[in-house]
Amino acid sequence: MTAPIIVLVRPQLGENIGKAARAMLNFGLTEMRIVSPRDGWPNPSAGPAAAGADIVLDQAKVYDSTAEAIADCEHVYATTVRKRGVTKPVVGPDGAARMMHSESGRHAILFGREASGLGTEDVALARHILTVPINPEFGSLNLAQAVILTAYEWSRIRREAGNEELVQPTAEEELLPPAPQEELDGLVAHFEEMLSPRGYFLPEARAEASLRTLRNVLTKPGWNHLEIRTLRGVLSTLERDRRD
Amino acid sequence: MTAPIIVLVRPQLGENIGKAARAMLNFGLTEMRIVSPRDGWPNPSAGPAAAGADIVLDQAKVYDSTAEAIADCEHVYATTVRKRGVTKPVVGPDGAARMMHSESGRHAILFGREASGLGTEDVALARHILTVPINPEFGSLNLAQAVILTAYEWSRIRREAGNEELVQPTAEEELLPPAPQEELDGLVAHFEEMLSPRGYFLPEARAEASLRTLRNVLTKPGWNHLEIRTLRGVLSTLERDRRD
Repeated sequence: MTAPIIVLVRPQLGENIGKAARAMLNFGLTEMRIVSPRDGWPNPSAGPAAAGADIVLDQAKVYDSTAEAIADCEHVYATTVRKRGVTKPVVGPDGAARMMHSESGRHAILFGREASGLGTEDVALARHILTVPINPEFGSLNLAQAVILTAYEWSRIRREAGNEELVQPTAEEELLPPAPQEELDGLVAHFEEMLSPRGYFLPEARAEASLRTLRNVLTKPGWNHLEIRTLRGVLSTLERDRRD
Repeated sequence: MTAPIIVLVRPQLGENIGKAARAMLNFGLTEMRIVSPRDGWPNPSAGPAAAGADIVLDQAKVYDSTAEAIADCEHVYATTVRKRGVTKPVVGPDGAARMMHSESGRHAILFGREASGLGTEDVALARHILTVPINPEFGSLNLAQAVILTAYEWSRIRREAGNEELVQPTAEEELLPPAPQEELDGLVAHFEEMLSPRGYFLPEARAEASLRTLRNVLTKPGWNHLEIRTLRGVLSTLERDRRD
């Protein structure tokens, strides 16, 4: 029942970082990570907007890339307003909150920059898409509002869970949480390393999309540590010469 | 299942009235009533803050007293942060939303002025107290945030009541079912064919278990047809000689 980590990816205004911190602390969330804040960090505009939620800002960690920010996280959610045709399960704030309470491991929620949201490459890192179901004719949520709805649901489901038995996984293997993101990154890199010299990513113009597709396919399963190790073993074997 | 009426009691800033309208429309609420706005009505600061939710502001009605504003409502909720020792049932945004869906009649939710909240005489008009359960050590919700949480819950419970799944409807690609078993078998066989001559299944005594493990890992994702095709492409590429 660990609280989720709120990851702000390339936020523009310090004021919005402060508002997000305030939104979080209202519902008991304290761990914020910031990827490449546009105006650097610390930002003098953040504090006043946090309205007292200084503890969140003081403890916030800054990273150069989204991948680094979530390297130690087993569950990653990408918050987007629009559906992007990616083959990932889509959950609402309530569905995500239920997963946070039922699945062990660290959960991180990615929020994109104010103007443009998350980039495709950030979404590719996530196993789930988190979408707040809004009025199809008027969708206008700002960053702090998206954060507060997510934090609110986490808090609400926690209260609910306090009165309800959570369904427990049965088999021992199912208790293993998905491997942390860095192990998945290692697997993707291993594939990339082997495929690249064999021309898989040609023509160059398609390279990025091909890698993203492959990453999406490999992200979907939520493999655990042992499963990733098995696949790394498979790849190492394939690197050997045939014996026959 | 009528949508609740949002009643802003003696709001101070036009900007906050606009933000409340925006918060409402995100979740499909359109009926706003305003009791004695400090700076009169219409207020030029409201429109820009509504970010396009003009329909809510245009239709907003203004009243001199809270009693007049809710005269035609059967159910009235007073939003307060603190409990005031009044002997009224207290509900959260979720409990209130459930009542709106289960009890017929008009439901109105009172929100107090930014600085001081609802007065005792306003609370006295309500049948229920609506309190957002927040961090006891840090409660700092502004007007628009209180409105958005209430509106969000109304929308969420409406979907729930409609027997809609909590999980969002998925994009077309996401509707692709897992590939038929024979495609998965083809993928497993492809792996086996490549791994076997390279000694992956040795020693012989472990061969069956190794293949089972690999099959389990590859079965877990429930890949669809396109995903399997991507992986078959990956394997075919790996069969090629390196170019470097």
